Amino acid sequence: MTVQQLLGTHPRPVGDLEPAARCIEACAECATACTICADADIAEPDVAQMLRCSRLCLDCADVCTATGRVVGRQTQRDVAVLRAMLEACKTACRVCAEECERHASHHEHCGICAASCRRCEEACDALLAVVA
Amino acid sequence: MTVQQLLGTHPRPVGDLEPAARCIEACAECATACTICADADIAEPDVAQMLRCSRLCLDCADVCTATGRVVGRQTQRDVAVLRAMLEACKTACRVCAEECERHASHHEHCGICAASCRRCEEACDALLAVVA
Amino acid sequence: MTVQQLLGTHPRPVGDLEPAARCIEACAECATACTICADADIAEPDVAQMLRCSRLCLDCADVCTATGRVVGRQTQRDVAVLRAMLEACKTACRVCAEECERHASHHEHCGICAASCRRCEEACDALLAVVA
Amino acid sequence: MTVQQLLGTHPRPVGDLEPAARCIEACAECATACTICADADIAEPDVAQMLRCSRLCLDCADVCTATGRVVGRQTQRDVAVLRAMLEACKTACRVCAEECERHASHHEHCGICAASCRRCEEACDALLAVVA
Repeated sequence: MTVQQLLGTHPRPVGDLEPAARCIEACAECATACTICADADIAEPDVAQMLRCSRLCLDCADVCTATGRVVGRQTQRDVAVLRAMLEACKTACRVCAEECERHASHHEHCGICAASCRRCEEACDALLAVVA
Repeated sequence: MTVQQLLGTHPRPVGDLEPAARCIEACAECATACTICADADIAEPDVAQMLRCSRLCLDCADVCTATGRVVGRQTQRDVAVLRAMLEACKTACRVCAEECERHASHHEHCGICAASCRRCEEACDALLAVVA
Repeated sequence: MTVQQLLGTHPRPVGDLEPAARCIEACAECATACTICADADIAEPDVAQMLRCSRLCLDCADVCTATGRVVGRQTQRDVAVLRAMLEACKTACRVCAEECERHASHHEHCGICAASCRRCEEACDALLAVVA
Repeated sequence: MTVQQLLGTHPRPVGDLEPAARCIEACAECATACTICADADIAEPDVAQMLRCSRLCLDCADVCTATGRVVGRQTQRDVAVLRAMLEACKTACRVCAEECERHASHHEHCGICAASCRRCEEACDALLAVVA
């Protein structure tokens, strides 16, 4: 399946299926990457330097999970709630990406996670641009 | 236990334990109330009129769950992420409360849920006022 | 509000409101305690000894959050799903409590969290005893 | 990225990366499909017939989200907790798939969601077969 196809089977689909589907997929991928990175961070020998990264990854996973769910619901959606969560998700992804990027050269999971956060930040931004 | 006591056992607690604890408790209570109200809504005879309420309750439960987790973490917290989630949670609670209040006279769960949303909205606001 | 009152406003409430309400409340409290304990663990000077505790607290918070939601829904509930989640939650709470108890003498958050896990383990067990 | 690659960057990866990665991916996909299907169900003209489907989809989304997170953590994992959640997830996916399959001929989202639940059920089973 693709998420966009699935969204299209709703009896009254919202108009912005393509950016909505991209956002849902990016949130799911980012939540997974952040959960795995938060866990790998605390297993590293330099754990004391990785605490901020682990913590921000936990936050980002929680925010992305909630955002993907809010975006996925098309029945009677409220634009104010949707936009507020997309803004929060953009912020969580950006801050987490910035921290992960600092560790990308010595921890591969941080580099992979940072890229995932940046994709999610962009997907939230793209959906914000069309939701009004 | 109280949440405030538990927050105080962190090796480096943040300064705003009392409003943080109130916010965590309000988010947990609101997430529970919204989960139960979303479920009761679709079991009502006037389900067609309750779809917006059910959907907003599901959103609010997800946002409150994520917000309570972000607020609960004191290690290396990021104020931008914290504030963005508190703002999103305020919006989700306000919009959900407004819808629940419309049904409070004929569905008791909506009245209880609306009050819980309003408490959470206020608790987020009170924490926003001291987090800088 | 009390959770039991709220459950009672469902148009077709399930029969076991009192143990269901206790379980929902215990899951919410345990999820909060575990989120805070997982975060405090990695901020302790003996972080290397606290990794198992932090990890099990993260697992327990996730399992309790999901369990509280499943228990909170009364519309068309499925007993097999409910029982499987209650069993998983009992296990997550027991294993997390056992680890937290090992650290309770030197980390107060572990003692508080362990007690919360034990209450949730018992609340799941009490609900399992009446759900058939 | 692939989830398997990301799991492999952990400083002490667990042995079963391939089935673990498949399970994490299946849980994420199933949680997304169930969130969207639960929402589409209540927007259908035959909503009264779709309440059990919507409710089981909400349960399944919550269980899959929690399971994917537990599986994603490799630091100091506990096999009893992991197995209990995989068993609960198998049950939630099977029961949800059975209900969605009943509606697949008249609601396309149910057919897509059922297939996603079946893939997740199989992925949990495959991981259970190698985790000891």
